Amino acid sequence: MEIEETARLLEELRRLLADEAREGLPELLAGTHPADLAPALRELPLADQVTLLRFLPREQAGAVLYEMDDQTRLTLVEALDQGEVSQILDRMPPDEAADVVETLPDEQASRILDLMPSRESSEIQDLLQYGESTAGGIMTPEFVAVHEDMTVGQALDHLRKSATAEGIFYVYVVDDHDHLVGVVPLRRLITADPATPVHAIRRTDVISVSAETDQEEVAQLVTKHNLMAVPVVSRENRLLGTITVDDVIDVIHEEATEDIHKLAGVAGDETIFDPAGKAVRRRLFWLFVNLPTAILASLVVGLFEPSIQAVAMLAVFMPIVAGMGGNAGIQTFTVIVRAIALGDLTLANTRKVLLREALIGLVNGIGTGLVAGLIAYLWKGSPLLGLILGLAMITNMLVAALAGTLIPVALKRLRVDPAVATGVIVTTFTDCSGFLSFLGLATLLLRFLQ
Amino acid sequence: MEIEETARLLEELRRLLADEAREGLPELLAGTHPADLAPALRELPLADQVTLLRFLPREQAGAVLYEMDDQTRLTLVEALDQGEVSQILDRMPPDEAADVVETLPDEQASRILDLMPSRESSEIQDLLQYGESTAGGIMTPEFVAVHEDMTVGQALDHLRKSATAEGIFYVYVVDDHDHLVGVVPLRRLITADPATPVHAIRRTDVISVSAETDQEEVAQLVTKHNLMAVPVVSRENRLLGTITVDDVIDVIHEEATEDIHKLAGVAGDETIFDPAGKAVRRRLFWLFVNLPTAILASLVVGLFEPSIQAVAMLAVFMPIVAGMGGNAGIQTFTVIVRAIALGDLTLANTRKVLLREALIGLVNGIGTGLVAGLIAYLWKGSPLLGLILGLAMITNMLVAALAGTLIPVALKRLRVDPAVATGVIVTTFTDCSGFLSFLGLATLLLRFLQ
Repeated sequence: MEIEETARLLEELRRLLADEAREGLPELLAGTHPADLAPALRELPLADQVTLLRFLPREQAGAVLYEMDDQTRLTLVEALDQGEVSQILDRMPPDEAADVVETLPDEQASRILDLMPSRESSEIQDLLQYGESTAGGIMTPEFVAVHEDMTVGQALDHLRKSATAEGIFYVYVVDDHDHLVGVVPLRRLITADPATPVHAIRRTDVISVSAETDQEEVAQLVTKHNLMAVPVVSRENRLLGTITVDDVIDVIHEEATEDIHKLAGVAGDETIFDPAGKAVRRRLFWLFVNLPTAILASLVVGLFEPSIQAVAMLAVFMPIVAGMGGNAGIQTFTVIVRAIALGDLTLANTRKVLLREALIGLVNGIGTGLVAGLIAYLWKGSPLLGLILGLAMITNMLVAALAGTLIPVALKRLRVDPAVATGVIVTTFTDCSGFLSFLGLATLLLRFLQ
Repeated sequence: MEIEETARLLEELRRLLADEAREGLPELLAGTHPADLAPALRELPLADQVTLLRFLPREQAGAVLYEMDDQTRLTLVEALDQGEVSQILDRMPPDEAADVVETLPDEQASRILDLMPSRESSEIQDLLQYGESTAGGIMTPEFVAVHEDMTVGQALDHLRKSATAEGIFYVYVVDDHDHLVGVVPLRRLITADPATPVHAIRRTDVISVSAETDQEEVAQLVTKHNLMAVPVVSRENRLLGTITVDDVIDVIHEEATEDIHKLAGVAGDETIFDPAGKAVRRRLFWLFVNLPTAILASLVVGLFEPSIQAVAMLAVFMPIVAGMGGNAGIQTFTVIVRAIALGDLTLANTRKVLLREALIGLVNGIGTGLVAGLIAYLWKGSPLLGLILGLAMITNMLVAALAGTLIPVALKRLRVDPAVATGVIVTTFTDCSGFLSFLGLATLLLRFLQ
């Protein structure tokens, strides 16, 4: 929903809440998607949030809770009766309910779970034992499984009687010991003769994951094989649940946010709704990690303090060498990190890619170096200064290309995630090599510059 | 597939290719996923690529072609007979075939299409008329539609007879004029009494898109409503095709790459396989756009050249003020841009978010400013220099917070994509304000520093 649409919805909600009779409120709420309601609710006073949530049918209330940021949800759940919350959770898909329970303080969570029917409560508790970002943490325990010896007709009957939601597209096949032995797409089941045994039409090459599998790996598997759902099995190959593609899409969005944040030195899960104190702690940590890299660049400049003392205009051109080198380094680095993430960069083509980046760096260095050198000459009237600036920029863009390629590749080989802000390592390299080449060359030729 | 696994597959392929008899090759190929074969093939000589593609069953050959990068595919297609290529395309899903044809030179594409059966060829040509990144460009014309007056039994019969693949999960309902009037999930169809008319069980609130809809919008819709497929309709609401969730996942990956690249000033679709010349042109353009911003920072330093002449050590600390301010600005900027992309940042909460970022900037400025100031004092023995550095860093982190928040918000209001490398605008701000505050303060207090 666009920024403006949320504002309009919010205005409409405020208008209807102000009206004593609250006519029209149920209709507006019923016609609005939970994903749109959640951000609007956040902007209202807590009392109004409670009122609106009570106006919603339980199922929609659950969906709104699920779509909310953790902070708003926490305050809202504390303001509601625990009985109410347990009733809302009871109507949610178990995997979503578990995600909500996970964000509550332990004590509150266990009291709310105690108020739920025991079957639903234990389903949620089973899910809570898995790590948040594992297959177990995102799966739902709802699925349809049939025995391999059933006929197609019996399987269809079983499917008709089972209580799970409409969103099922695969029927899983199990043996006497509940081991997963195959899968039948719904379409196949319909097309087959009802007397055929299920084991005759099942696919045996079923792709499954274990509950401990990392969610990113699950997403890669689903992407690669174009799956609509993946079964999750125990160590003994017993069916535990399924992960549907809509949950995988959420994972992909989450991982993209994490990748983008990491490049900037921000925690993967930071949102604008986190308390400022939490954001300070996490961002400050990263800034302090960076301080030595900034000091390193300072030390390099410090080596040439006497030259700057002699020719102060050298300091004026430092930002150009460092800034342009940094930009080029980040370009290379970003392309390489993404190529690693997508599996494009392999051991076999690393050398070719490195040469390509070096060539690009050289050409871009000559291009920008020429222009910047000319500007420096025209500005300060010293052709030598222009030459030094140009040569330093060419050197620096070559360094940028090499550092931008080799640092992420080396980290990948060491099994470190190359996205963890090696961007800063790259710009430290370009800062240092930029100052070193520019001030170094200038120092060598100092007597001609004065 | 991990880097090492591709290397292993490649080695195995080379070994089997070297063997005259080529035993074991069909088996290895049959057991390898097209997404894994494509990157391995790229590393082999063209003649071997052709050999391997001819060893593959047509369908798998099509999948491998589809998974390849444009550059490798182009050379390979040119090396194959046009008849061969048309036979491979004929066996591919029409949307994937259209994507492949789109990357070929016009003349070659039309000759290959001429060699295909006319029905398949015109299906592909229909798809080619839509923009690459629109709903029409990613849809497949294959779907199952039934008339609203059919009974459930008739609909199931129709489904059994239709030739489309197993991957169908919705049956679309149309009226006398082929207008889309509803949808029935497959599961619902199975559960219903065969004598029920379809219009009694169809959902009428079917979410559809037009062929011109941007693919990013389609992805947002699918994400929000947890859909497995979206129907694409003409302006007259006639069913043209469907987009399945696996195509949407590809779009989400594509858009994430684009977002990450944009932040670094790299073309959204650049890959490590693009010819170096193309990459130079596009990256150099962006570097030249950035040159004025680097020069702007230089001009600010230039204002204080006499101060640097008097106290050269000022130049030594410039990289710390600029570097740390830039890092903080990029942190804020990244969180804000992502919050805008996810719809978290609304008109209603902009002020609150701005205050939050300002507070974070202030605290982080005080934290890093204290430490950096102390280091400067200990290094150069001047408490005043430490004080000036510390104050400049506090000012600069506050500017970083404001610029990092307000610039993307303003661009969003102006309907410009805030991700388009406003990162550089933010660091230009922090460079300039950092130099201005540090060198400005130092100039005011210059006589105490000498």
